[in-house]
Amino acid sequence: MRNILIIGAGKSTSSLIRFLAEKASTENLHIKIGDVQLESAQKMAADFDTCEAFQLDVFDDKQRQAAIQNADIVISMLPARFHIEAAKDCLKFGKNMVTASYVSNEMQALDHKVKESKLTFMNEIGVDPGIDHMSAMQVIDRIRNNGGKMLLFESFTGGLVAPESDDNLWNYKFTWNPRNVVVAGQGSAAEFIQEGKYKYIPYQRLFRRTEFLTVPGYGRFEGLANRNSLAYREVYGLEKIPTLYRGTLRRVGFSKAWNVFVQLGMTDDTYQMQNTENMSYRGFVNSFLPYSPHDSVELKLRHSLKIDQDDLIWDKLLELDIFNANKKIGLKNATPAQALQKILEEKWTLGADDKDMIVMYHKFGYELNGEKKQIDSTMVSIGEDQKYTAMAKTVGIPVGIACLKILNKEITKTGVLRPIYPEIYEPILKELEDFDIQFKETEKDYTGYNPDQLD
Amino acid sequence: MRNILIIGAGKSTSSLIRFLAEKASTENLHIKIGDVQLESAQKMAADFDTCEAFQLDVFDDKQRQAAIQNADIVISMLPARFHIEAAKDCLKFGKNMVTASYVSNEMQALDHKVKESKLTFMNEIGVDPGIDHMSAMQVIDRIRNNGGKMLLFESFTGGLVAPESDDNLWNYKFTWNPRNVVVAGQGSAAEFIQEGKYKYIPYQRLFRRTEFLTVPGYGRFEGLANRNSLAYREVYGLEKIPTLYRGTLRRVGFSKAWNVFVQLGMTDDTYQMQNTENMSYRGFVNSFLPYSPHDSVELKLRHSLKIDQDDLIWDKLLELDIFNANKKIGLKNATPAQALQKILEEKWTLGADDKDMIVMYHKFGYELNGEKKQIDSTMVSIGEDQKYTAMAKTVGIPVGIACLKILNKEITKTGVLRPIYPEIYEPILKELEDFDIQFKETEKDYTGYNPDQLD
Repeated sequence: MRNILIIGAGKSTSSLIRFLAEKASTENLHIKIGDVQLESAQKMAADFDTCEAFQLDVFDDKQRQAAIQNADIVISMLPARFHIEAAKDCLKFGKNMVTASYVSNEMQALDHKVKESKLTFMNEIGVDPGIDHMSAMQVIDRIRNNGGKMLLFESFTGGLVAPESDDNLWNYKFTWNPRNVVVAGQGSAAEFIQEGKYKYIPYQRLFRRTEFLTVPGYGRFEGLANRNSLAYREVYGLEKIPTLYRGTLRRVGFSKAWNVFVQLGMTDDTYQMQNTENMSYRGFVNSFLPYSPHDSVELKLRHSLKIDQDDLIWDKLLELDIFNANKKIGLKNATPAQALQKILEEKWTLGADDKDMIVMYHKFGYELNGEKKQIDSTMVSIGEDQKYTAMAKTVGIPVGIACLKILNKEITKTGVLRPIYPEIYEPILKELEDFDIQFKETEKDYTGYNPDQLD
Repeated sequence: MRNILIIGAGKSTSSLIRFLAEKASTENLHIKIGDVQLESAQKMAADFDTCEAFQLDVFDDKQRQAAIQNADIVISMLPARFHIEAAKDCLKFGKNMVTASYVSNEMQALDHKVKESKLTFMNEIGVDPGIDHMSAMQVIDRIRNNGGKMLLFESFTGGLVAPESDDNLWNYKFTWNPRNVVVAGQGSAAEFIQEGKYKYIPYQRLFRRTEFLTVPGYGRFEGLANRNSLAYREVYGLEKIPTLYRGTLRRVGFSKAWNVFVQLGMTDDTYQMQNTENMSYRGFVNSFLPYSPHDSVELKLRHSLKIDQDDLIWDKLLELDIFNANKKIGLKNATPAQALQKILEEKWTLGADDKDMIVMYHKFGYELNGEKKQIDSTMVSIGEDQKYTAMAKTVGIPVGIACLKILNKEITKTGVLRPIYPEIYEPILKELEDFDIQFKETEKDYTGYNPDQLD
């Protein structure tokens, strides 16, 4: 019997636990799920005989160390900042580890010791980061192995509502942490490179600088820039690539309307507003508009942001009921972002029968034998229901596969790793196909940014 | 002989030193000016027999304490964050102190001990804060003493170029720290209250939410909101006032053009751009615009921000030469704000014969005997030359007056103070008139925000 310890039983663990539980008898697994909230762990374990739930406070050193000592491998599904204590214990007790989070500086600092101890700490093996790394590196390595030279890499991922559940004007519902959606893009400017030129987009322009993408069978999407594209040059070995851009997908028209909230200041999470508990939705909107008692909040907003009477943005705003004078924010000392989230959650929460969708789109531009070529690669995954969402599936299954392959010594590379090596991504991508997580490639004419080298 | 110690010999000390030096023989003063750069202190002391320059490192405890011990009163003209060590020594050695800076939390924490030691630590006695406090409190106290009830207080200050030196399209030159001008308004949203309604303006809308003011003899100005208006409710005892707004003055049209820089992201000081040393002005602008090799930087900018071909904004941008492909930023690892400052300094630095100007505008709305009334109060001060600027004069003279009045025991109130008490502001405002720093009051019809109580 091999013991797998899963720390954290959040929403994203459902598919991971089912994946492992279904392999439990053939693979001889016993799965322990620890969460600070015993009920959460119990709920996740309930359907499977081979799963055992227990209360685990990751900040209780004794409890955590006992659990890790008894495991053969540890999966941490906690938020990224909580991994490090578990990681140190894994090092101490000689256990391999898997996480779906970005490698933090603290985690990276363990690399040397992890290698010395001949251990594998596999990170960034969820969907984004995770499936994006693996699917991109597979094509990039293929192009390079054939003697091609990479000219362009663009990559977009979106967590969206599935077409069959897409029934609002924004074509959007919250399929993940709503707070992250409301504050997305804040902080430093988005930085990327196009045809060798560095480009910067500040937050206040981010939602006006989108580009369009069409996914066969799923229609059009818009991509908006992530903040950290350039970090991928080193990770992917693309130091000299002239065009590198990573972004987030929404349905076309979302960003233009969302920009209304950005411009008014409603997405700000840095200060608390006055009297938000008794503030109406209408009062909330009015807080960001000039005082002018003879004019309606509606007209002030239209004038302030120059929104025509027949602009579709307006219907989107009306759909959210943001001018309602009777509905209350009902939160004490809320930041603008928290108040906005409250309003949005009323309309954008997934219904009991709603399904979510993960969409990924890569563009690879390259030169081979003096010819410029392009491959576009897309993946769409639709959730089963509210428990086995596309998000839980695309995060959990690669984590589960990696865990088993490490346990079975099919993955033996040591250190603090990302799944960017062929011996790791090839077998995992192959197995993901069994779960209908599969990329479709199309060869295209090269449509890079500057085929004629104009400036 | 009474010894006055001035710590810091920056640009703002010229008028202070001349003021004190001219009183030296009648008032029996010896003035010691200490600065970490001996030359700066020597330059300031040079014209006056009664002034002595010396090298003083405020972080050298021994040196600082010796200097303070030998003084009868200490004036700290350092940046606000450097006052506290001198303040603690003043407390230790029983010396009074004057600063033109906002009372920091650390300074406020000394209040009790300062009172116990029967000392006066007078702060916020420059122009803004300083003259604004005194001139506002004088009118507010008069209104309240007459039985009036305050309905509205708005207050604006601007450091600008004098009309006779105003020769660019922006009607602006740097008369103070350029960096503060470039990053002004960043951080949390501006918060104020109008007719009992809290209002918030995020940075990305700040320069589009201006209001106009006319100063008799000086034409029109525009006011844009400061971030911290509400803090003045407590300081001025206006806790229940329905309208309170503080702002900064520019010439009309400045903000609309400045907004171009804000929207593009050029005022961001939070990250370093790539290759700024060899970047041209044109390349800098292009960094914030989409890649599109068939279009000019000019057209991309016009399209991106929807600037018509005959918009005056455009002439303002051309005047700054920001599309020049030959001029280099020439700074290593510059933030956008640093690069922009470099470009602006080329055009907005005061010439050898240029003069600066300080403008202040207060509006007081109140109710007296059931009638609504309004008083507008304005002050304009023009600099003499590049040394004795309006900024140096309006900061330094009130500091100097307060210093002498404390020394002569005309001001005896103890504690960590602001000049908001009649026994302090009345004699100082009176004496400021001798230096042509004088407010003109106009009675107006009440033009408050909501005379009919509409919402």
